Parts: sequence; C-alpha cells; structure tokens
Amino acid sequence: MQVTMKPIGFVRHGQGDQAPRHWSISDVEGWLEIDPVYGDGLSNIEPGQQIVVIFWFDRSAPFEPSLLRQTPPNRNHPRGVFSICSPRRPNPIGLSVLDVLRIDGARIDVKHLDMYDGTPILDIKPFVTGKDACPSTDKR
Amino acid sequence: MQVTMKPIGFVRHGQGDQAPRHWSISDVEGWLEIDPVYGDGLSNIEPGQQIVVIFWFDRSAPFEPSLLRQTPPNRNHPRGVFSICSPRRPNPIGLSVLDVLRIDGARIDVKHLDMYDGTPILDIKPFVTGKDACPSTDKR
Repeated sequence: MQVTMKPIGFVRHGQGDQAPRHWSISDVEGWLEIDPVYGDGLSNIEPGQQIVVIFWFDRSAPFEPSLLRQTPPNRNHPRGVFSICSPRRPNPIGLSVLDVLRIDGARIDVKHLDMYDGTPILDIKPFVTGKDACPSTDKR
Repeated sequence: MQVTMKPIGFVRHGQGDQAPRHWSISDVEGWLEIDPVYGDGLSNIEPGQQIVVIFWFDRSAPFEPSLLRQTPPNRNHPRGVFSICSPRRPNPIGLSVLDVLRIDGARIDVKHLDMYDGTPILDIKPFVTGKDACPSTDKR
C-alpha cells in the first residue's frame, strides 16, 4: 500500500539550502509559488492569517532504522523521531506554520520560512488550534 | 516530480466510515496502531500531550478542478480548498491534532479522532504552536 503525491508548488526565498531549523524560530521571508492551475484553491487565504504548509523534505537523506531515535541540535539525549521535527523521517513530510503577508495571483508572500529554496509543497491548510478556528464549522 | 509514501500505521476506532467532521469537534477515542518496526520512534511521546497526525484520505474520491472551491457543510459560500479542511484535496493529506491518552508499545490511545477506521497514518509530529513548544529548540 502506497500513496503517490505531486507538488502543488515550490518554496522560494533565494537563499539556497540555507534555512533556520524551525519555523517557530525563523524570521525568513519569501513566497510560495503555487501552480496557477490551483490558483482558485487559494481563495479565502488572507494576509495576516497563519497557514499550515505541508511539504516534502526533498533533500533529506533516506530514512534508516538508526534514525528512529535522534539527538536534535541543542539537546543532549536522543528522542523518538515522531516526538521531534527532524527532516529525516520514515515519510519525508515537513510541516510549517507561516504568516501570510500578501497574495498575488498564485503567489503567497510568507514569513517564518524554514524550508530550503525550491522545496516542493504538497498541501496548504488553515492553522486550526481549536473548535473556534475550524473554517468548516458552523459560521455560515 | 512525485513522492511516494507508505503508511507507518493505521487509525483504529471500530466505527467504520463514521467520524466527526473535524478533530476540533470530536470526542471519539481510539488508537493509532503503528507498525512495530517504528516502535522506538514513538519514544518521548507522553500521555497528556497533543500530537499532530498526518494521514492519507484513502477513501476520498479523486480531486478534480471543480473542487478548487467547495462549500463546506454549515457554510453558505464556496471557499478555496486550501483555506478549508476538506478531504477532497489535490494531495489527499489529512491533519488531526489528537490528545494522547496512553502508550502501550507501538499502540497510542488517543482522543478527538476524525478519521475513518483503518485510515493509513503517514507521520506523527509534536503539536508546536510557537517557539517555546519546539522540541528541538534549546532545552537540553
């Protein structure tokens, strides 16, 4: 059983393979270059909003069993890979929460990037932390 | 360019294709049955913690361009697919934030499930809402 996915766009910031270790400690600005065929799908994303960007760690070395526990930078003890945000995971899926600065067609300017330039984007979702923030809940 | 992923486990709750529409409005309990080969990767996930579960909408009909804007249940107007949590998306990736109740080997008992029974799980991550919660940040 396997699932195959294709990028809907790419991360752009012009800094190559340089990026802060995590969105929560990043001030890097750049943009999401979404394939224009998906442009209508970006409706209702607004400046000032936080979005979840799910992406592919396309430049991570393959996962291997020795990586089931890893010691993150700035930590002294190994931790289970599913308890940390390491880019070397069984499925190379990344998740960042970004601030939307501007929207221009199929380009979304964002802040707090922690991906490499050119990283393939798989999905964008609203950042929902609880019942009141769910955009499909009872709001008409 | 495409990426292929394999499930690391499956959602179990015994209610078949029934599930609340979103984790934020669900009280359903069940468990994540993770492949034991990944068991060590679950270290440091603790009861009481919130985890992000990334899964595959394996029973969603294929995406088509008419779904770029969709009207969610309880809404009166169509919205861009990337601004809502619909299961019909260009890449069929779902995201739920679950409470960890118990861990027993490679089984994680959880609350707030909104997936169908048997849904394939692709990844588990810590639920990080800001700098202080990042598990790889400077905490030793």
